[in-house]
Amino acid sequence: MADDQAVRSPGRPRDTSIDTRVLDAARRLLDEQGFEATTVQAIAARSGVHASAIYRRWPSRVAIIEQAVFPGFASATVRPTGDLRADLRRFIGVYLETMGAPAARAALPGLLAAYQSAGRAPAPETWLAVSARPQFTDILRAAPEGSVHPDANPDDVFDMLLGAIVARILIPTVIQRNRPIERLVEMVLRLLPAETAEARP
Amino acid sequence: MADDQAVRSPGRPRDTSIDTRVLDAARRLLDEQGFEATTVQAIAARSGVHASAIYRRWPSRVAIIEQAVFPGFASATVRPTGDLRADLRRFIGVYLETMGAPAARAALPGLLAAYQSAGRAPAPETWLAVSARPQFTDILRAAPEGSVHPDANPDDVFDMLLGAIVARILIPTVIQRNRPIERLVEMVLRLLPAETAEARP
Repeated sequence: MADDQAVRSPGRPRDTSIDTRVLDAARRLLDEQGFEATTVQAIAARSGVHASAIYRRWPSRVAIIEQAVFPGFASATVRPTGDLRADLRRFIGVYLETMGAPAARAALPGLLAAYQSAGRAPAPETWLAVSARPQFTDILRAAPEGSVHPDANPDDVFDMLLGAIVARILIPTVIQRNRPIERLVEMVLRLLPAETAEARP
Repeated sequence: MADDQAVRSPGRPRDTSIDTRVLDAARRLLDEQGFEATTVQAIAARSGVHASAIYRRWPSRVAIIEQAVFPGFASATVRPTGDLRADLRRFIGVYLETMGAPAARAALPGLLAAYQSAGRAPAPETWLAVSARPQFTDILRAAPEGSVHPDANPDDVFDMLLGAIVARILIPTVIQRNRPIERLVEMVLRLLPAETAEARP
């Protein structure tokens, strides 16, 4: 944004409007036609932004799609209240909504396939932008003394939650069971006591 | 097999040998060239089985790929011993091995994408053949009295485990953390007490 402010012409910051048009076009294409059809050429045609301008801003179509479907949790922050159950319930609700949005749901398998190709693993800053991991850690930190043992491993529990959310969005048998979010909250709460932090011998 | 026995010509059952060649070719193509390249035509060329013969046996390339990469847990059964921790450790190890095999790992995102398309959800018998859910339930049933509460919900815990396994195979941040299987066993054990079965009001 600082750059946009510095170089913008009068009226709307030009870069921002181009970014918005490109990302909106990518989301619409993902939702309507799926991952494979969401190419840079298709995004250019749909957004009216020339492909060369798109390539100046993003290194690849995967990078565009990541930014288009994962707004990052800055835009959907769940501020910890200290009520662990309530905070987790809201956090998991927002997380499921973000990952389950039509464009994100359509993009996820294609992104996971892309990450398998050599050298296609996402840049750390991408993951930092889209990961809910820091928010999850903040929520645990804000929990009342004793509700989360200091030895508990938030990253292991977050990995489990991440898998559960992906399963609810992509795996037919899990989607069809359509269990209430509260069940997921319950299970995450069960994983936080100290005993989950250390494997027994 | 009964049909094969009835109609087979002298020597190897013809259907079985054709099935084997097709499924082997599909696995090699998935491993070497990925999901998109694993078409019926490519499988026919690699296996030497004519496409029309392949279509007589499988309704779609997705059906071939499912059968090729998910042998079903009949071929990798973990017989419950009654030692819940040991049984879960072996079960999760086999499950990770099956889902994480190169061909299965390459196929999974493509299959998940295919299941999103209308009418492409897998047939129930396919899921029955490939699902480890019944084995998981058997292991819990064989556990000593009291180690799994009768009110615990094995399907909810299995969904959680399924998501955790998919995450360990497909999601870069989870793959990179490369946590020991014992951590997953620990977390699954924490999910089995009665309190996880009923959401608190």
